[in-house]
Amino acid sequence: MTKCKFCNKESYVKLKSPKIHLCKEHFIEYFENKVEKSIKKYNMLNKDEKILVSVSGGKDGHAAAWVLKKLGYNIELFHINLGIKGFSESSLKAVEELAKKLNVPLHIINLKDITGKTLEDIRGKKCSICGITKRYLMNKFGYEHGFDVIVTGHNLDDEVSFILNNILNWNIRYLAKHEPVLPAHDKFLKKVKIFFEIEEDLILKYAEAENIPFTTVKCRFAEKAITLKHREYFNELEKLRPNIKYQFLAGYMKNRRIFKCEEDENFEFRECEICGMTSAGRICSFCRVWKLYKNKNKSNSK
Amino acid sequence: MTKCKFCNKESYVKLKSPKIHLCKEHFIEYFENKVEKSIKKYNMLNKDEKILVSVSGGKDGHAAAWVLKKLGYNIELFHINLGIKGFSESSLKAVEELAKKLNVPLHIINLKDITGKTLEDIRGKKCSICGITKRYLMNKFGYEHGFDVIVTGHNLDDEVSFILNNILNWNIRYLAKHEPVLPAHDKFLKKVKIFFEIEEDLILKYAEAENIPFTTVKCRFAEKAITLKHREYFNELEKLRPNIKYQFLAGYMKNRRIFKCEEDENFEFRECEICGMTSAGRICSFCRVWKLYKNKNKSNSK
Repeated sequence: MTKCKFCNKESYVKLKSPKIHLCKEHFIEYFENKVEKSIKKYNMLNKDEKILVSVSGGKDGHAAAWVLKKLGYNIELFHINLGIKGFSESSLKAVEELAKKLNVPLHIINLKDITGKTLEDIRGKKCSICGITKRYLMNKFGYEHGFDVIVTGHNLDDEVSFILNNILNWNIRYLAKHEPVLPAHDKFLKKVKIFFEIEEDLILKYAEAENIPFTTVKCRFAEKAITLKHREYFNELEKLRPNIKYQFLAGYMKNRRIFKCEEDENFEFRECEICGMTSAGRICSFCRVWKLYKNKNKSNSK
Repeated sequence: MTKCKFCNKESYVKLKSPKIHLCKEHFIEYFENKVEKSIKKYNMLNKDEKILVSVSGGKDGHAAAWVLKKLGYNIELFHINLGIKGFSESSLKAVEELAKKLNVPLHIINLKDITGKTLEDIRGKKCSICGITKRYLMNKFGYEHGFDVIVTGHNLDDEVSFILNNILNWNIRYLAKHEPVLPAHDKFLKKVKIFFEIEEDLILKYAEAENIPFTTVKCRFAEKAITLKHREYFNELEKLRPNIKYQFLAGYMKNRRIFKCEEDENFEFRECEICGMTSAGRICSFCRVWKLYKNKNKSNSK
C-alpha cells in the first residue's frame, strides 16, 4: 500500500509537481489551498462580493461552487436549461442536487422561454450559438440581479487547448484575451475562472473525494473532434514532461503581451440597439444569432 | 482502379489540396513544379549560384539534391561522417550511390578528423551537439570552398514541429527566425530550405517514384520522443482538417513579426576568438561544445 506523504493513510492521488502521494483528506486540503492561492494570486474574488456560479451539471462548475462555498464565499448558482434531450434532464437533476447539498439559491432559465426555441431546434453551428447564448444570458441575469461577478469552471486543460487552437489558427486577437479575471466593463460583469491553473484530473479527483453530485452525460451535439485532439496531445506531452500544461500556460501569461495590438486597446464598446446590453457592434452577438432584430422589425412595422 | 486526373494511368498518389489523383509521371511533374514555385516565391536560388546540398543519407536531402539537379541548378553534395555505428555506414553508402547516379561531386568530412572524436564518443546532449556541429562544418566547408548557398532538406513537417515546439516552450527569440531563406551574413553563407512548404509524405512519394537511393536507418541516439508527439499530433489534425500543416505555416509567415524584438534586430555578430568564423558570442557554439578553447590554452601554455 502506497502511503500518504503526511500520514499513514492510503494514497488517493499522486501529484505531479511536487511528486507526492496524498490520502483523500490531505488531497482535499491541498486542492482547496491551491484554489485559494490562485484566487489570491490573481486577485480573483472577495468575500463581500455577490458571486454567481455558472453550473451546467458537469464536474467543473459544480466543483467550483463547492470549493467556493467551503472557502466561505457568498455564492448562488445559475443554470440554463438548453432543452437538449437526455442531456438537459440529467444536468437539471445534478444542479438541483448540488443546490440542495450546498444549501444555496439556484436560478434556472429555460432557453425556450427566452428565444422560443431549444438548442435542438436550431440549425447551423449549435456549439458556437450555445456559447454565445450562455455567456449572454448568464451576464444579463447577473447584471439585472445585482451580482458582482460570474464564476465559471474553465480549467487548465480548457485554457491550454483554447490557446493552442487559437495559435494553430493564428487568431492573434483572441490570443491576447485569455485571462483568469476579465474585469467588469459597462454592463459586462467581472468574470473569473477559479480553476484557470488547475488540471481537469485534479478537479475530477476532488469532485469524487467530496461526493459532489454531477452528471457525466455529454451533450451529443458537442463538436469535440479538434478540441479532443488538442487535449489528447497535451495529455501525451504530460507523460513525457510532467507539468507541461501549467508551464505552457505560465509562459503564455508571461508572453501574451506580444499578441496585443493597438487597435484592440483603443476599442470602444457600445450598447446593442436591440437589447441595450454592452456590445462590440451595433447589434450584440446574442441578438444577431437569435435574429432578434427580425422580431423588432416585425413589431416596428405593426 | 482509380485513375489519374490527367491521363488513363493508375493513381500513384492522392493529393489533399486540390483533392486529385495523379499517376507516377504526373505526380513527378507536379512535385517538381511545386518545388520550382517555392524557389521562385521566396527567391531562394539562382541558376548561376554554386550550391552545396547537405545530404545525411535520408530521403529529404537526397530528394532536394535530385530535384535541384533535374531543374538545372549547379549543385555539389556535402556529407559528414559522424562515426555512428550502423547508421553512418549505411548513410555513407547511400550518399555515394546518390552522387554516382546524379554525377555530381561529393565532399565527405569525417567528424573524427576534425574533433578527434565520433558522435559515439561524446557524453551529454548528442542531438544538440550534432546539430551545432553539422551546421558549423557545413557552413565552414561551403565558405572556404567558394559556395554561394547551402541547401538542406528540411520539410513542412520539420518546420511546423519546430515552430510548435518553440511555442510550447515560449522560445520567442527562435520564433522570429524560421525562414525558407536565411540571407548570407559575414562568413555565414545563405541557407535555403527548398522543401519549406512541402509535406514529408510527398517527398517520400517523390523519392520512391524517382528511385532515389536513400537510407531508412535511423540514428539510434535521436531524441525523438517529444518531436514525435508533435508530428503525430499534426498528422492527426491533418485527418480532420486537410492542409492544416501548410495553413499553420502560412499563418506563421504572415504573423511572425509579432515575435521580433528590437534587441535581436540590433544584434551584431563577431568573429569567434578560436576559429575566426562568424559567431554570436566571443567563442562560437562549435568551439564551445567541442571545448576547442582548451586545446588553444594547452598550445598557449606549451
